[in-house]
This record gives sequence, structure tokens and C-alpha cells, in this order.
Amino acid sequence: MIDFSCTSLRVSRGRLTVLDQTQLPQKEVWLDSPDPEAMIHIIRELKVRGAPLIGVAAAIQLGLLAESGADAAKIEAALWALREARPTAVNLMNAMDRVLTALKEGGPKAVSSAAEAICREDVALADGMAKNGAALLNANEKILTHCNTGGLATVGVGTALGVVIEAARQGKKPQVYVDETRPLLQGGRLTTWELACNKIPYTLICDNMAAYLMQMGKVDRVLVGSDRIALNGDFANKIGTYGLAVNCKFHNVPFYVVAPRTTVDEKCANGAGIPVEERSAFEVRGVRGAFGTVEWAPSAADVWNPAFDVTPEALVTAWILDDGVYSREDIKNGALHRR
Amino acid sequence: MIDFSCTSLRVSRGRLTVLDQTQLPQKEVWLDSPDPEAMIHIIRELKVRGAPLIGVAAAIQLGLLAESGADAAKIEAALWALREARPTAVNLMNAMDRVLTALKEGGPKAVSSAAEAICREDVALADGMAKNGAALLNANEKILTHCNTGGLATVGVGTALGVVIEAARQGKKPQVYVDETRPLLQGGRLTTWELACNKIPYTLICDNMAAYLMQMGKVDRVLVGSDRIALNGDFANKIGTYGLAVNCKFHNVPFYVVAPRTTVDEKCANGAGIPVEERSAFEVRGVRGAFGTVEWAPSAADVWNPAFDVTPEALVTAWILDDGVYSREDIKNGALHRR
Repeated sequence: MIDFSCTSLRVSRGRLTVLDQTQLPQKEVWLDSPDPEAMIHIIRELKVRGAPLIGVAAAIQLGLLAESGADAAKIEAALWALREARPTAVNLMNAMDRVLTALKEGGPKAVSSAAEAICREDVALADGMAKNGAALLNANEKILTHCNTGGLATVGVGTALGVVIEAARQGKKPQVYVDETRPLLQGGRLTTWELACNKIPYTLICDNMAAYLMQMGKVDRVLVGSDRIALNGDFANKIGTYGLAVNCKFHNVPFYVVAPRTTVDEKCANGAGIPVEERSAFEVRGVRGAFGTVEWAPSAADVWNPAFDVTPEALVTAWILDDGVYSREDIKNGALHRR
Repeated sequence: MIDFSCTSLRVSRGRLTVLDQTQLPQKEVWLDSPDPEAMIHIIRELKVRGAPLIGVAAAIQLGLLAESGADAAKIEAALWALREARPTAVNLMNAMDRVLTALKEGGPKAVSSAAEAICREDVALADGMAKNGAALLNANEKILTHCNTGGLATVGVGTALGVVIEAARQGKKPQVYVDETRPLLQGGRLTTWELACNKIPYTLICDNMAAYLMQMGKVDRVLVGSDRIALNGDFANKIGTYGLAVNCKFHNVPFYVVAPRTTVDEKCANGAGIPVEERSAFEVRGVRGAFGTVEWAPSAADVWNPAFDVTPEALVTAWILDDGVYSREDIKNGALHRR
């Protein structure tokens, strides 16, 4: 495995370390991930997160396992266990499928180069999305975004936030409204941190303030990422995305999904086929992180905590993929089907 | 001043104590409020909250000041200071206007009976709203609500939550979805506590989950309170109400405002005349309460934190007041103008 380093993954002399995103922005803690069991734990606890990054991290882990001398049976068992660590992330499924094909065709020694290829392609995909998206933005636009979709979520520059970062690089001076993104606060903790690192001005808001900003005419465009896109353009993303899309429709604010083509799930004809995981009640009763733990709701409170919601294609202005920007018309004509 | 007691105010032998709502649901702490300065502090820190309750609490405070022998000049100075403690709450303005009229017409000895009358009327108003609203509900409805609008917010049974409590008393078995209501979490902390006290089943959600619930067809009706209603029906309420109303429109979920007629501001022709206060950045960067204090966002994060938003009348199905339920047609015909 070649050595490399990005915002939240490092490979050095066959050793994989990952930035613990649950500790940001208070602390930058790098965790060793010596084996697939460690990586499964890291993914489940959201220490590594972002649909594209999870796929790359899991593939690298299998590459290192192969290099350590594991046989095909052991690699395949680890691969199936990694697949189950985050069932909504189609990028993880796709990466595992590619590694499995390499393993079956070339044996353990083919796994490492498959992982390297996935990693290289992730960087190229992010660059493609960033350039395609940035071309749409005018100077001084006010962009609203949800969750975290920057370099922390990918090996490259990111998805939705990658577009903003690229626009800033091009001198377009975007300003960003950041949804805090309850319950896990990826916007408040991570997107703020990443925008500050990139010296892009931002304003943090609670999720329920976005509609009022739109009413005041202060949002030019909304950009979000996606965990899974169905063939008809319906897509799953962090909980709260759907209500935001409804508000964009009502206020005539353009609403874009930014994702690599690897996010498209060929097995899903539409959003009804996308599974949505529910997470623990504690996340809604309070907050927990490197910043501390508090619980404000009664500990007996009944809670509903879906991790994602599904936004129908009718609410999307366009899909910004690595290989182009697609309208609803394009999608109806099969733009998301495999080329 | 007669002795009396309700969910969050007690008057006993000329001594006023209030339930510190910032400490709920973890602790029930009652605070002495010996003078108007103490009450201003209590209102500013949201220890007493809910538009109707603030008006009653301020009036009682002035009644007790008058009984302690203060002269008219001192009472009037305190009255103007109390008015400024929460400028969005029109009930406070109305209560202060009534006390001022009593003071000018009857001198200090008229203040106490004016305060008692305001208090009695608040109970009657809440009963009126509760009965008018409960009559609309069918058995086993799933009601979604925002912020806290029950007995903690009034001397009586409440506004929006009062309707639910009355429906439960009538055996209609309502179930409630509770928006946690960032940033101050009145839903997560207070509405949950009050529903549990009333043995009404509820499910706590983050604000950004409400739209997804509506998409799934799980919300029969949304009931919210109001801090101020303009003559055309536009109204201010806790931040997040507007985005919820937009989602109700999109999903054809009936959306009701529940408030006493005293919430109507005759000086506001429409929502554009309603001032919206902005609160401190810390509230969005983290949370603070009896449950603890944590800050998860970078401490340098720029923040926008409006306490309220304004919902246009076009998104409201009907206004449930103490003296009747009014449609958009009724409002257009002047139903909110003084009788």
C-alpha cells in the first residue's frame, strides 16, 4: 500500500490511522485501526463518517489485511462484516463489491491495488464534483448547507462543501449558512471547523432557522450531499434534508444534490427502496461528544430518531455528479443508469 | 392579593414564588420574586416564560408592590421597566396597559385588584381555548407541537398544549409528537415533562424530523402557540414555527394557532410590524441548563439566533382563540379586530 494522507485518513508504512471526527472541533485525535474489527467499531461510532470516506477506509483496511498475509477466506469474511457496519452507505457496498471482485479474480495480492485505485478515484471524483458545481455559482452567493460534506467526508475535497471550497479557490467569495444538524451536530462541529480551516466566512444556525432565512431572501442556493441516490433521482441524506428541500420548493430557492456517481444505487428504482436506519434514543434526549455529555429530556422520554430521510426527485433542481450536472429531464432520460 | 397556586406561580400571604423553568425537568426549584427588579431578571433569563404567564406574573408583582405601600410614581416606573423585559410578548404589554389604567384611575389601591382580575381571566381564557380546540380533534389523533405551550406558559391549562390536555380529559386519547425546539429546548425539557405529568403519550423528535413524519403520513394536525398575532392573522412564535407551517402546507396537514385574544396586537396590521429579538450566540454554539453546560461549536463561530419567526396567515388553517375558532375568511372579515 502506498503512503498517503488526507484530511482524515493517513496510511504510513502499512499502518492506517484515522482522525476521530467525534472529537472535533475540540481535539484532533488520530486513532490506529490495526484490523477490520477496529474499523467496524470506528465506523459504527461515527468516528469515521461521510459515505465516500467509509468506502475508502474499509477498502484500505482490507488491502492492509491482505498485505499482512491473510488468506482469501479471512479477507472475504472481514469484507462481509465491514459491509454491515453502515447499511445505508451505498459507497461502502460499491467499494466492497470491487474489492470482492479483485479478490476473486486476482486473490489476496490484488486487494491492495484495488484499494489504492478506489482511493485515487475518490480524489478524482471529488475534483470533478467541485469543478462542476463551482461553475454554477455566481460571485458572493449565500449558500446554505446541511450536515458535513467536505474533506472530512471523503479522501478528496468533499461533495457539497467541496463545491463551496472550489468556488472560494476560484475567488467567487461564497458565504455559507451552516445547519447545525441535530442530533449529532455534524454542521455545528465539523462544517464550521472545516470552513474556518479554509478561511470561508460562515454563519451557524439551528436547523429550524433555515426557513426563516429563506423567507428573508437570504439564501441563494442550497447544496447537500447524499448517502444513496435511486435511479429516478430520489435520494437519502442526513435527517433534515427533506424538510429543507420542501422549504426550498416553497421559496423558489434552487436545491442541489452533490454526490459521486458511486452513490447511485442501481438496485433502487426509487426512494421507497432505500432503507433508513434508526439510531439510539439518547442522541435526541441530549448530546454526547468530546465536548461533554448532557441529557436535558426526561430519561424515560419516548424518542424517534431516524438517521436519514428520503427526498423525492421532484424537489431537486439538479444533481451535481463528478461527470456532469444533470437536470430532472436528464434523470428521466436515464442519466443515473450505468454508462 | 388573594392566595393562589398554579403549575408555575404561587402567591401566599403576599409572597410571590415562581417555578424556575430553566431547571426542569431535572429539578423543581421555586424562586422568590420579592420586587420588580427580581421579576425582570427572572423574565430575561426565561425562568418564567410563556407569553400569557409573563403578563400575569408582572401584574401580580406590581399588585404586591402597591400593597407594600409604594406610591404611584414608583409603581409606574416599575411598570415601564417590566414592559421592557420581553418586548415581543404582547400579553405583557396588554397586562401592563391594564394595570396602568387602573393605577391612573384608582391609584395604588386599584393595582392589586386589576392584577387579580388579569389572573382570573387568564384561567378563563385558557379554558375557552382548550374547549374550542378540543372540539375539533377526533379520537386517537397524532398531534405535532412546537415549543412549550401548556400550564407552564399560562396560569390556566395552556394554549396549544391546553387543547391536547383537554382532549385527553375528554377521553379522545391524543398522541403527541414533541419538537425539541432548538436552541432552548423547551419541547425536549418542558413539554415532555408536562405531558408525562398529564399521562399523555408522546414521542420526542428533533425539529428537523417533523417533515419526514409528515411525509410518512404520521401527523394529523399541528398545534402551536403564539407570542403576537397581527390583525391580518400573521403571527410570531418560537423560531421553527414558520418552517413547520410551510411543511404543513406542502403535506396538507392542518395547521392551527392557539392563543388568547389578548395576543392580538391591534397596532400591527400584518407580520411586517412584529419585532423579532435576536438572542446570544452561545445558545446556538451549545446548550446550558440545570442539566449542565456544553459548547460543541468553535467558540469563534459566527451565529444567527432569532428567538422568533413570523408565519403568514396564508399558511394557517384556523386560529383557535378563547372566544371561538376563526377561519381565514373570518380573519379577512375582521375577526381579530376588537369587539
